[in-house]
Amino acid sequence: MKPVRIALLGCGTVGGGVVKLLHRNAAIYARKLGAPLELAGVAELRPEAARRLGVPGKVITRDANELVLRPGIDIVVELFGGYEPARTMLLKAIGAGKDVVTANKAMLAKHGAEIFKAAAARGLAVGFEASVGGGIPIIRTLREALAGDRQRAVYGIVNGTCNSILTTMSETGIEFADALADAQKNGLAEANPALDIEGHDSAHKLCLLVALSFGAMISPAQVHTEGITRVTQADIAYARELGYAIKLLAIAKEDDGVIEARVHPTMIPQRHLLAGVGGAYNAIYIHGEALGSTMYSGLGAGQMPTATAIVADILDIARHRRAGSAARAPALGLPLGHVKRAKVKPMGEVVCEYYLRFAARDKPGVLGAIASVLGDSGLSIASVIQKGRAAARTVPVIMRTHEAPERNLKRALEAIARKKIVQAPPVFIRIEDRL
Amino acid sequence: MKPVRIALLGCGTVGGGVVKLLHRNAAIYARKLGAPLELAGVAELRPEAARRLGVPGKVITRDANELVLRPGIDIVVELFGGYEPARTMLLKAIGAGKDVVTANKAMLAKHGAEIFKAAAARGLAVGFEASVGGGIPIIRTLREALAGDRQRAVYGIVNGTCNSILTTMSETGIEFADALADAQKNGLAEANPALDIEGHDSAHKLCLLVALSFGAMISPAQVHTEGITRVTQADIAYARELGYAIKLLAIAKEDDGVIEARVHPTMIPQRHLLAGVGGAYNAIYIHGEALGSTMYSGLGAGQMPTATAIVADILDIARHRRAGSAARAPALGLPLGHVKRAKVKPMGEVVCEYYLRFAARDKPGVLGAIASVLGDSGLSIASVIQKGRAAARTVPVIMRTHEAPERNLKRALEAIARKKIVQAPPVFIRIEDRL
Repeated sequence: MKPVRIALLGCGTVGGGVVKLLHRNAAIYARKLGAPLELAGVAELRPEAARRLGVPGKVITRDANELVLRPGIDIVVELFGGYEPARTMLLKAIGAGKDVVTANKAMLAKHGAEIFKAAAARGLAVGFEASVGGGIPIIRTLREALAGDRQRAVYGIVNGTCNSILTTMSETGIEFADALADAQKNGLAEANPALDIEGHDSAHKLCLLVALSFGAMISPAQVHTEGITRVTQADIAYARELGYAIKLLAIAKEDDGVIEARVHPTMIPQRHLLAGVGGAYNAIYIHGEALGSTMYSGLGAGQMPTATAIVADILDIARHRRAGSAARAPALGLPLGHVKRAKVKPMGEVVCEYYLRFAARDKPGVLGAIASVLGDSGLSIASVIQKGRAAARTVPVIMRTHEAPERNLKRALEAIARKKIVQAPPVFIRIEDRL
Repeated sequence: MKPVRIALLGCGTVGGGVVKLLHRNAAIYARKLGAPLELAGVAELRPEAARRLGVPGKVITRDANELVLRPGIDIVVELFGGYEPARTMLLKAIGAGKDVVTANKAMLAKHGAEIFKAAAARGLAVGFEASVGGGIPIIRTLREALAGDRQRAVYGIVNGTCNSILTTMSETGIEFADALADAQKNGLAEANPALDIEGHDSAHKLCLLVALSFGAMISPAQVHTEGITRVTQADIAYARELGYAIKLLAIAKEDDGVIEARVHPTMIPQRHLLAGVGGAYNAIYIHGEALGSTMYSGLGAGQMPTATAIVADILDIARHRRAGSAARAPALGLPLGHVKRAKVKPMGEVVCEYYLRFAARDKPGVLGAIASVLGDSGLSIASVIQKGRAAARTVPVIMRTHEAPERNLKRALEAIARKKIVQAPPVFIRIEDRL
């Protein structure tokens, strides 16, 4: 039986996992597919790693450019990461009639429209299951399994580094800087962790989730993005007292064609299923109009989990390629002509409940003054925690508000700062209580 | 554009949901598919319900037999339930060249091999996403998304009635009989609830999960099946004290070609994600060799959740049908020729940890006597709870054991009964601590 020929661009961590699976499960894949998968080429500047995995020297090349154009290659798997040469290589591969697979969320969030369009024009596939949630099959779930429903909201824990750090902070009581250092020591955070801890990686993934959930294109620049660097033990402890856990959530909602898209630390009920997703695990929680809530969780990164997602794409694409089939679901669920650039709701109009922490002077009337300014901006208070007098001259005042547009909150916080009612800039964290 | 023509066999709860979705989302489906879905026929003996949903009278027929053979129908959706005439109708539809969709787990667990074989022989599809986990897309996840991995174990909360009852018992402190009555009152349990509460529905679903996870066929008779009727408040309370929750789990594991398959009340760690799945929610927790653990949760039943799964199947099948494609993944993930009738491990060889509750005479030496008999059968004790003396002449003794084959446990419990060490038959519940 004629094999389906695969080329890997990059043989680092994830590429190595793909090589391992292609070796280990070769017989199973051949049975499922009716033809063997053949690793026909690996482009890698440091070929030793690939050789150590048993890849024959003649399969390894330094010339990615030649490999993506090579006749006989059926599927090109891009694992370089970064914007370039990843984008160019994928476009060349598509131009040469190859189906492609990639785990590159940053590149897809920025250049996805271009890549998907080029592939659709030639009737080729773009597999990108590994780009969001690692081994969690959220891409094909949104594209195919939930295709009968209209999605209303998506809440994702989509960055394992941030979730590990927040879990450690919550379980051990250490502050962010120490938890980050621990994560770096344990290989759960990169030496330069900014992309993760500042929320940008989550924002990239959210763009893809928005496209699949709502058939709407947004760019990372349109996603309000905050990371976890300002989360403190104080806020974790008060959150717990109020019945909440703090998670970095990527949140998107659709309302009458307008998209709400944001990444920020979020308080969610401790008893919510998402709050139980700890450590490096990811989860995507989806609210559908007819289906109600479903949740998908698993390891969001790592060599083998991510490799399983890549191989699932390869198997799917190989099956269609062998059958010469045009029956593939469009990459984003809808034909591209129907995927519109979306209107995004400004953050000022986003409605949330809020957790507020003020450093108040320990004297009569402060609580009343804060409440009065909040009330003037239309923020009504749901509950207050004011701790007994400390030795210090300031005491923390914690408030949970009812729902209000963020612009009202901002206006109130500015007024409170201007009037010097409190000693330090107030802290606020958005609450999602009814997810 | 030529429509894809659907026939519904049955227009009860789920059928009504399908009709609603086909109406409500018609434009979206046409966009996704490039052609409209047309509800061309509804077989129903009580046509009023269908008419109330806006189905034109001329679309409704009492003659299911004629409908499944009718030229022009592309996809037949069987929602009769039960073994017959469901089986016969599906076989006739397949014989007439129709693709089929069904939510009928009982029928598939018994006659699946026959149905799948007939469809495969004609290159037709059998969609059965709705048969397990309602709206949770577990069928296509196992078949396609996890196709790159080898599954090791599957743990499912797959019966919403049982999960509701156990959740109510755990949260309110009422006993089984009252919780069942409540569930019946709230429409969460049927008037004749045996199929659910005795575990048979879970066993049917487990047979399908086994086929998809391990490429192995087993019959419901091969699944050791216990329901929840003997779960008591006492055991829920002791479980909690030991850090466990009690769930009805459908469990399957694969070890070197031998399948372990069982349905029974199970103690799992309170902090495990599965323990947080309450009420009518279902969840399937899968352990894959490369992927590690993933979990899929959502509503396991109900009109609209189940209907979304049916429509997802319809859309998928319609897309392939329009493209004349043979690129569809086989119904069970593997070509049927590779799906083997499996060897099932006898329960005596199944290894678990155990929770044991004895009604002991309140006199010295009883604890030692129990421990000694357990030790003789190779059961070692991990922890004991013995409550202070009560007014009664018997006191409960609770033990958690380390892992042992079930045959050893049974031997020990028989010896304890024979020697009249305890006042009543001991209670045992299997523990899954490392899932």
